Amino acid sequence: MASERYEKGMDVLKEFNLVDQHHPEGHMDIGAGFKDLAPDLEDFVVEFAFGDIYGREGIDPKQKVLVTMASLVAQGIPQIEMHVKTGIKVGLTPEEIVGAIIHILPYAGFPKVLNGLKAVQKVFNEQGITVKTK
Amino acid sequence: MASERYEKGMDVLKEFNLVDQHHPEGHMDIGAGFKDLAPDLEDFVVEFAFGDIYGREGIDPKQKVLVTMASLVAQGIPQIEMHVKTGIKVGLTPEEIVGAIIHILPYAGFPKVLNGLKAVQKVFNEQGITVKTK
Amino acid sequence: MASERYEKGMDVLKEFNLVDQHHPEGHMDIGAGFKDLAPDLEDFVVEFAFGDIYGREGIDPKQKVLVTMASLVAQGIPQIEMHVKTGIKVGLTPEEIVGAIIHILPYAGFPKVLNGLKAVQKVFNEQGITVKTK
Amino acid sequence: MASERYEKGMDVLKEFNLVDQHHPEGHMDIGAGFKDLAPDLEDFVVEFAFGDIYGREGIDPKQKVLVTMASLVAQGIPQIEMHVKTGIKVGLTPEEIVGAIIHILPYAGFPKVLNGLKAVQKVFNEQGITVKTK
Amino acid sequence: MASERYEKGMDVLKEFNLVDQHHPEGHMDIGAGFKDLAPDLEDFVVEFAFGDIYGREGIDPKQKVLVTMASLVAQGIPQIEMHVKTGIKVGLTPEEIVGAIIHILPYAGFPKVLNGLKAVQKVFNEQGITVKTK
Amino acid sequence: MASERYEKGMDVLKEFNLVDQHHPEGHMDIGAGFKDLAPDLEDFVVEFAFGDIYGREGIDPKQKVLVTMASLVAQGIPQIEMHVKTGIKVGLTPEEIVGAIIHILPYAGFPKVLNGLKAVQKVFNEQGITVKTK
Repeated sequence: MASERYEKGMDVLKEFNLVDQHHPEGHMDIGAGFKDLAPDLEDFVVEFAFGDIYGREGIDPKQKVLVTMASLVAQGIPQIEMHVKTGIKVGLTPEEIVGAIIHILPYAGFPKVLNGLKAVQKVFNEQGITVKTK
Repeated sequence: MASERYEKGMDVLKEFNLVDQHHPEGHMDIGAGFKDLAPDLEDFVVEFAFGDIYGREGIDPKQKVLVTMASLVAQGIPQIEMHVKTGIKVGLTPEEIVGAIIHILPYAGFPKVLNGLKAVQKVFNEQGITVKTK
Repeated sequence: MASERYEKGMDVLKEFNLVDQHHPEGHMDIGAGFKDLAPDLEDFVVEFAFGDIYGREGIDPKQKVLVTMASLVAQGIPQIEMHVKTGIKVGLTPEEIVGAIIHILPYAGFPKVLNGLKAVQKVFNEQGITVKTK
Repeated sequence: MASERYEKGMDVLKEFNLVDQHHPEGHMDIGAGFKDLAPDLEDFVVEFAFGDIYGREGIDPKQKVLVTMASLVAQGIPQIEMHVKTGIKVGLTPEEIVGAIIHILPYAGFPKVLNGLKAVQKVFNEQGITVKTK
Repeated sequence: MASERYEKGMDVLKEFNLVDQHHPEGHMDIGAGFKDLAPDLEDFVVEFAFGDIYGREGIDPKQKVLVTMASLVAQGIPQIEMHVKTGIKVGLTPEEIVGAIIHILPYAGFPKVLNGLKAVQKVFNEQGITVKTK
Repeated sequence: MASERYEKGMDVLKEFNLVDQHHPEGHMDIGAGFKDLAPDLEDFVVEFAFGDIYGREGIDPKQKVLVTMASLVAQGIPQIEMHVKTGIKVGLTPEEIVGAIIHILPYAGFPKVLNGLKAVQKVFNEQGITVKTK
C-alpha cells in the first residue's frame, strides 16, 4: 500500500499532467528504470522530488520548470528534454523556454547554453513546435 | 559618446530600476570596479549582459531574475545578493525567491541550496523582509 | 506531532550520534538556521537526507561519511567541517579522513583537495587530533 | 628500463588485480590509448595515480574505489564503468556500489546520481550481477 | 544590413581564418544552427564572442585558443574539436595543443583531461597530424 | 635524501623562479602547510605537479601559467593569486594576464571571470602594477 507521502507525490504528478508520460501506475520511468538496482529510488523521486519539492508552495508550476531547466543547463547537464516537455504541459510558451536558456549566457557561457538549446530543439522538432521570432 | 548599444543597455538598467543601485552615470559597480584592469568590461556588462540579454524578449523581468539566481546557485556560486535585490525591485515576492532556491534541491543538492539561502537571508534581514510561512 | 518519517530521520541522527551536535530537540542546525525563510527545510534535511538516505542500507556509516566528503570536495565545496566531525564520531580514523581527501587528487586536482584539507586541518586542530605519519 | 616508481605503480595495479584488465605489459589502456599524443601520460597514470595515490596508506582498496566513484559522479562525470569493475574486483558488494552512488543524492542531486547509476547498471548487466533488494 | 559591431566580429572571424569553416556569409554554424529557435543568437556569437572578446587586445590569437581550450576542458566540456581546428589555423603546434591539455592535470584531474585529449586525437587523426614525441 | 624526481621538480621550481617564494629548502608552502596531515603531499606537488607537469615540454612557461589560470577560473576556483605572481615572474605582461581572464567570458560567464579579476586586482595593487589601457 502506498504511503501518504507517495500519494501526495502522485497527486503532484497528476497536477503536472505527468502521469501519462510515465507508466500507468504513475511511476516515474526514471525511477522505475532502476528497480533492479534500487527499488526505493522511485519513492525518493515521487516522495521527495515531487511530493516535497514540486508540491511546495512559493513558485508556480511554470516557474518551477524554468528554475529546473536553468539549474541543469548551468551545471552543464544538457539532459533537459523531459523538463522541456513538462514545461510545455504546464503552459510555458516556446519563447519562454528558449528565452530562459538564452538568459543563462552571461552566467554560464555559450557552450552550456548551446548544449541546452540542442535539447530544446530536439523536443520542438519532435512536437512540431515553432518559435515566434521577429 | 556612448554607443547606441550602450544606450540600449542603460535603458534596460532603468527598466530594471537598477541605475540608482549603481553610480549616477549608471555604470555597473561590478564593471566600474575593474576600470583599472579593463575599462571595456563595463561595456560588456552594459551592452551584452543588459542590452542584449536582459533586453531580450521571451521571458519577463521576474522570470529573468529567477533564471539568473538558479543558474548561479546550481553552479555553486552563492554571490546572489545583487540578484535577490533586483528580484525584489522587479516584483518577485519573498516566497518566490525562497521557493526558487529550494526548488533546486533535487537538481543540485543541499549544500549549494543552503549557501544560496544564506545570501537570501542576508538581504532579507538587511531590508526587513519577512517570508510568509504556514 | 512529528511524522513517522521525521521520527525515522531522528533515529538516524541518534545512530550517527549527531543529536547533541544540534539543538536538544534534535533539529539540524543547518535546517533550523533557515526557519525564518522555510520551516519545511528542516523536515527535508531530517526526513530525506537522514531518514531516507543516511537511514538506507547498503553502505555503513563510515562509508557514508567518506562518500559525503568526496562528493563535496570533488565539487569544489570545501565546507566539510561538519562531516569531518561526523566521521570522527562514527569511527573513521584521522588517517582515513585525510587519505580519502588525498585520494581525490587524480580525479579533481590539487586546488579542490587542498581546500578540503584546510577544513580537515581546522577540525583536527580544534579537537587536538593528530595524524600518524611515517 | 622501467623506473622504480613505475615498478611501484605496477605493483599496485597487480594488488588491485587490474593488470589483466589492461594489456600484458600492464599499461593502462587509458594511458596507452594516447601513446600517439603523449607517451608520458601512461607514466603519469601508473606512477602518480597508481604508485603515489592508490599505493598510499590511509584508506583500504574498497574505500579508494568508493571515493573515486563518488568524486566522479559528484562532478557530473558518469564514466565510472572502469571503477565499478575495479570495485567488484577488490570486494565491494553490489549493494555497496549502488548504496554509495545513491548516498550522493543530497549532495549533488538526482541527475548526476541517475547518470552514475546507468553506468553501474551497464556493468552489472554485462557481468550478470544482481543487487539484493528487500 | 549588418551592424558595425557585426562587421567587426566578421573581421575577427576572417583574421582567425574561420569564415570558410562556417558558411559563405560567415555565419557561425553554431549560431546559424539555432536560427529557428533564436535568430539573434548568431549575433551574440559574432558580435560579443568574436567582435568583443576575440577582437580584444591583450593576448594573441594562439593564447586565445589555449585559454579557450583550457576553460572548456577544466569545466568538463570536452567538445573542443572546433577550437583544436582553430588552434591549428592560428599556428599552434600539435605539441602546444597536447601540452596545454596535459598541463590541466594537476588542476582538474585525469578524467577531464583524457576526455579533452580524445577530442584532440579525433581532429589530429582526421587531419593526419602527428605529434613529435621523444 | 631527496629522490631524483624530487630534484627534478626542484629544478623546475628554480626555472620558474619560485624557490624564494617558498621556504629556503624549496618546499612549496602549499605542501609544507599540510605536513601535519600528509607529509607526502609536498612530494606530490614537487614531483608530479612541478617535475612531471611544469617540467614537461610542449608549451612554454608563459603558456603554462595562462592555462593554469584559465583552468582554475573556469572551474569557479578564484584562488589564483599565486599563479598571477608566477605569471609576472615568467614574463607575462599585465595585459596578457587580464586579457586571458577576460577571454574566458564567453566560455564560463561573468561571475567566475569577475571573481578571477578580483584576485588579479589584489596582486596588481600589492605590487603596484598598472595595466595599459586605451
